[in-house]
Amino acid sequence: MSGGRTGSGGRAAPARAELDSIVARVRPPAGSLSAATRAHLDRLTKPPGSLGRLEDVAVRLARITGAPPPRSERRVVFLLAGDHGVCGRGVSAYPSAVTTEMCRNLVGGGAAVCVLAREARCEVVVADLGVASEAVVPGAVDLRVRHGTDDLAARPAMSRTEALEAVQRGTSLVASETPAPDVVCLGEMGIGNSTSAAVLTTPLTGSDPTGAVGRGTGVSGPALEAKRAAVRAAVERVPADAEPLEILRQVGGLEVVGWFGVTLEAAARAVAVILDGFVASAAALVAVRIATPAAGFLFATHRSAEPGHSLLLRELGLRPLIDLGLRLGEGRGAVLALPLLDGAAAVLREMATFEGADVSGPLP
Amino acid sequence: MSGGRTGSGGRAAPARAELDSIVARVRPPAGSLSAATRAHLDRLTKPPGSLGRLEDVAVRLARITGAPPPRSERRVVFLLAGDHGVCGRGVSAYPSAVTTEMCRNLVGGGAAVCVLAREARCEVVVADLGVASEAVVPGAVDLRVRHGTDDLAARPAMSRTEALEAVQRGTSLVASETPAPDVVCLGEMGIGNSTSAAVLTTPLTGSDPTGAVGRGTGVSGPALEAKRAAVRAAVERVPADAEPLEILRQVGGLEVVGWFGVTLEAAARAVAVILDGFVASAAALVAVRIATPAAGFLFATHRSAEPGHSLLLRELGLRPLIDLGLRLGEGRGAVLALPLLDGAAAVLREMATFEGADVSGPLP
Repeated sequence: MSGGRTGSGGRAAPARAELDSIVARVRPPAGSLSAATRAHLDRLTKPPGSLGRLEDVAVRLARITGAPPPRSERRVVFLLAGDHGVCGRGVSAYPSAVTTEMCRNLVGGGAAVCVLAREARCEVVVADLGVASEAVVPGAVDLRVRHGTDDLAARPAMSRTEALEAVQRGTSLVASETPAPDVVCLGEMGIGNSTSAAVLTTPLTGSDPTGAVGRGTGVSGPALEAKRAAVRAAVERVPADAEPLEILRQVGGLEVVGWFGVTLEAAARAVAVILDGFVASAAALVAVRIATPAAGFLFATHRSAEPGHSLLLRELGLRPLIDLGLRLGEGRGAVLALPLLDGAAAVLREMATFEGADVSGPLP
Repeated sequence: MSGGRTGSGGRAAPARAELDSIVARVRPPAGSLSAATRAHLDRLTKPPGSLGRLEDVAVRLARITGAPPPRSERRVVFLLAGDHGVCGRGVSAYPSAVTTEMCRNLVGGGAAVCVLAREARCEVVVADLGVASEAVVPGAVDLRVRHGTDDLAARPAMSRTEALEAVQRGTSLVASETPAPDVVCLGEMGIGNSTSAAVLTTPLTGSDPTGAVGRGTGVSGPALEAKRAAVRAAVERVPADAEPLEILRQVGGLEVVGWFGVTLEAAARAVAVILDGFVASAAALVAVRIATPAAGFLFATHRSAEPGHSLLLRELGLRPLIDLGLRLGEGRGAVLALPLLDGAAAVLREMATFEGADVSGPLP
């Protein structure tokens, strides 16, 4: 699983400078629009606030895209894949080979997220950041930094150079999409990545090392014990006061680091970022820790059954929109929530005002 | 507000026989499909159960429409409107005139539900079951039984004949739609109808008379007190052990009785019924009390901020799919949830199986 490296070497300093320049480009969405959008919402033919959090979504969208928000033309779910050395410890219910097999299924359009993305008029881009298999699956974008990570419970998952490389590949994925997407959904595939996310969550949220561990793809018994032990070992190994990016390279999957890059670049381009479950939210929180204004571009969609997800959402100050008890990410929650964002935007674009429709306001 | 009757008179006995025949036509959805659909879901390329309650939605849809469910071709949100005599007691934040004004806005397409319905490929049918205005708004279906109800706090909201007439008009609305809708959403408009629903909820759920009272369109202070007093008076007036249909005619709005008819007829035709908030759920619970198998055709969508809604959903054994803090119904939650139902159906139609996609199953 671990080790054979591809395509890194000697680019650390320029990659770091590139990252710093992206961070500098992340600016808060246009704040002054909030009050105007709230005022417009209160003129629409409904009791004030009666669309609940759909109104908050509308305000956030209007801040990002202008008011009223245009119909989103191109939405893309970036499905980033990577393998995890920690799987050698038996932390997952599925063999690592499933990462590659599912990449093929994602490219082929048979996975849940693909089916749901078609319903939501969302394109699917599969990118291999570090799957362990010999070759990249045909149809996936080859962004492979190395063949899987090292065992995060024993040593850093990747080198600093590799981490910066994975960040850069994530940012380039967003930057190279034409036409530019106006909504970006995060999705993941990587057997073992809920172990990685559980470790990340612990120092990022100041939580207990095992409080963030859930059943992932469905582990129980000895596998769950192995997962808990791996998370504890990694948390003890990594200094709690390390920089967020250092924590990420110590325990992140390559796909998780890639997402961090995707999130930063999307925020720098003022594009809405639709989070999915536990793993995507962990990457997004690292992005917010490094570039605070990125928070203004994020939307939470569902609350994963993974206990660590709630800890991350609290830190991000986000509340999910759907309540379906989804386990696993794969981008499913993100694409399922797209129609709710469309609805919020349509309310701002198309709803009648009390004056315009000649409807009486509240009684004095 | 109260009284001027139109179009009733002398049809009570045939209308009752008609109702009984519809009740007899309500059969449970095809139960034997459940196990087959669950088994199919477990063969799809995802950990078993990881789509959470989307899998429950898929199973229910498959039982109603066959497995895999076809793409729903024609979905209609029936927006039923009526006025409430109890508004004379100052129980609402808005004047009764808003019912008519909003009917015009619903027909014109500027109301929230219309905007959201367009996004969800759902047609809007506005029907006047008993608005108090002189004339029916052009573009609304004229099903008017009378001009608003009597004050439910003081006397029966309508006569038995009128109630049966409103039921029959609801059933005919579904029956006369061509092509037949394959999904029916419930939406309402009626200033004062959360007072009516609060009274209905009390005997139907065995709850405390004021436990079901919420802020409706946004009442507080004296109006909220007036609402509580009206609900208490109505609950004391109506025998708690009355038949569900008798309770409905004693306190229901004409649009609430109409929904009862819509729900029954849709269930009799084995069509999925997408509930909205508090008022629609009250009508649906009456339908289930009279025709138990109707429950199998219902889907809850959101949990209204009205406290009585949770009581009704518990009785119906349903859990909402979205969590947006919507207040008021108007069918907004129902149409917002349609894409989730589409997603559930698409999963059954289009997702790859482990064998078909050559993906490994769980580790032994």
